[in-house]
Amino acid sequence: MVSAADNEPQLTIKAHQGENPTIALDAMGGEAMPAAAIDGALRATAAGAKVLLVGDEKVLRAELAKRSGGAGSGLEIAHAGDVISMDDHAADVRRRRDSSVMVSMQLVKDGRAAAAVSLGHSGATMAAALLVLGRLKGVERPAILANVPTGDGFAALLDAGANTDAKPSYLQQFAVLGSAFVASVWGRQNPKVGLMSIGEEPHKGNELTRAAHELLAATPGINFHGNIEGRDVFTGVVDVIVTDGFTGNVILKLAEGEARALFSWVRQALQSDLRSRLGGLLAGPALRRIAQRVDPAEYGAQPLLGIDGYAFIGHGSADAVAVASAIRTATTALQAHALERTKEALAAVG
Amino acid sequence: MVSAADNEPQLTIKAHQGENPTIALDAMGGEAMPAAAIDGALRATAAGAKVLLVGDEKVLRAELAKRSGGAGSGLEIAHAGDVISMDDHAADVRRRRDSSVMVSMQLVKDGRAAAAVSLGHSGATMAAALLVLGRLKGVERPAILANVPTGDGFAALLDAGANTDAKPSYLQQFAVLGSAFVASVWGRQNPKVGLMSIGEEPHKGNELTRAAHELLAATPGINFHGNIEGRDVFTGVVDVIVTDGFTGNVILKLAEGEARALFSWVRQALQSDLRSRLGGLLAGPALRRIAQRVDPAEYGAQPLLGIDGYAFIGHGSADAVAVASAIRTATTALQAHALERTKEALAAVG
Repeated sequence: MVSAADNEPQLTIKAHQGENPTIALDAMGGEAMPAAAIDGALRATAAGAKVLLVGDEKVLRAELAKRSGGAGSGLEIAHAGDVISMDDHAADVRRRRDSSVMVSMQLVKDGRAAAAVSLGHSGATMAAALLVLGRLKGVERPAILANVPTGDGFAALLDAGANTDAKPSYLQQFAVLGSAFVASVWGRQNPKVGLMSIGEEPHKGNELTRAAHELLAATPGINFHGNIEGRDVFTGVVDVIVTDGFTGNVILKLAEGEARALFSWVRQALQSDLRSRLGGLLAGPALRRIAQRVDPAEYGAQPLLGIDGYAFIGHGSADAVAVASAIRTATTALQAHALERTKEALAAVG
Repeated sequence: MVSAADNEPQLTIKAHQGENPTIALDAMGGEAMPAAAIDGALRATAAGAKVLLVGDEKVLRAELAKRSGGAGSGLEIAHAGDVISMDDHAADVRRRRDSSVMVSMQLVKDGRAAAAVSLGHSGATMAAALLVLGRLKGVERPAILANVPTGDGFAALLDAGANTDAKPSYLQQFAVLGSAFVASVWGRQNPKVGLMSIGEEPHKGNELTRAAHELLAATPGINFHGNIEGRDVFTGVVDVIVTDGFTGNVILKLAEGEARALFSWVRQALQSDLRSRLGGLLAGPALRRIAQRVDPAEYGAQPLLGIDGYAFIGHGSADAVAVASAIRTATTALQAHALERTKEALAAVG
């Protein structure tokens, strides 16, 4: 079986027990929680990661006890009496300090964990990170970085949805944040930055992209490739795709929806007659590998960039494999000193 | 062979010689012109359409003479001494009245043709249509309508790229324009309208979509479904997708790019080992039908809605099949009295 983590770029660093930093895992927020969080944490722990489960202690202890090896796994629990559900408002975190996502961030703030990971309400996770950990100097708005599959790896897209109305200066900061992360964590030297627009020429686009293009072209320390178009997203022509959170979120959900639609049409077509049916049986494993590759639920965690600390958001439908992959992503980012590299990059822009 | 036209929704009306209105075809603008225009026009004429070629008369006569049956095809030519190339600015049409796209629009204005079709510079085609034919009453900005493949047909997306910065009132008008076209030309009763956003709830989205949602909910005569997300584009949950031209253009180019990327990965995967290779051979025809279905070059022509006349834009890389399909789309829209239906719909909104 090809696990999600194996697909991730540059995530081959093996975690070793004792050496690794503690990851606070919000074990309550998300569709399949806490079961997927616990199974994922056990999986990651077995691979050497250090995980601190955050949530209702009674519930988590009972779930752990159900699993063979669960009680003796060394998994610690930090109690949080509340949970932000998918139907709540992001701003609710302000008055719900005992929610699992807020407690996770507070553990990082207090130095009891090195990073926080949540698979729950992404708006609430961003709000909690901002509230507890704050913004980095030089950053007006933090952004969510998402992975987009390309021919031979991934590209980073930001903002994936945190800022629906952006100013040109936000996009400039996204470029710096994304470049620092991709260079340090993915190990890509001098990553190419593309500005999502609707034509290659600098004057093509909307008011936002035209102004952002000028800013990006004048930004020191980034490798600005210029405008890219929707058709360039999957070709890997750039390493970092910069866009506002509205467009970024539309892109990610469209990409996910199109992949699902195409593969469902492929499945139907492979049932259409005997010849196609036989072909489908033979080619099935190869086709499934591609379907898996383009499934965003497989990618693990998206970093919140511009936050003064390590915070990650996973897909709400994450299963145990995705949770383990999210923990691995957080561990890798810590080992790569992504935050320090980001601060240096921001300081260089001035 | 499955032709592009066969894939189009409700385009089964056969054109009959003598009864059909004349389509002015810009035979010069586009990548494969004038060859593809002439071959496409001959194809459409053979099917009963009436085409007036617009372009350099000497060049077109010479090209026609090369083809068997070309000279005796009954294809008429209207001379235009200039052509707007892909590198020109849209606004150039203002001072280049002799360009093939401007002459095509003028033929419609003068009543010598009932509709104009261009496969060239889409910005210039829109500019020429606006300059010569003007806007409909109640329309601030015309929009380009594009077809998006869904499970069992197509959805209409507008704006596909004419207005990169939109106001909420533009989106309201797009909803009315798109609904009238889809109802009259595609024959869909009471078509469902979705507003492209990043969450189903009315308050999700950016400033533009939040304001547009309120307007759309209060617009008489349209069937407003509410917000849709990127993942809903291909499911056919709505008939008309309303969005600004920047987002619309990103969506269309992304959809095109992802389909190409996925099918190229599928092709690679089907070469990976003997078993997959054999499967690919057997399933090939079924897979190719899907690849063709999602190729936008196959769709023919996109109407310019909100223009006081019939004007259509085709894909710049159109071949003869796509040109013939574009002519068929224009003929069908005329037969369906799309413009009259649109005027009635706009009047009802007030």
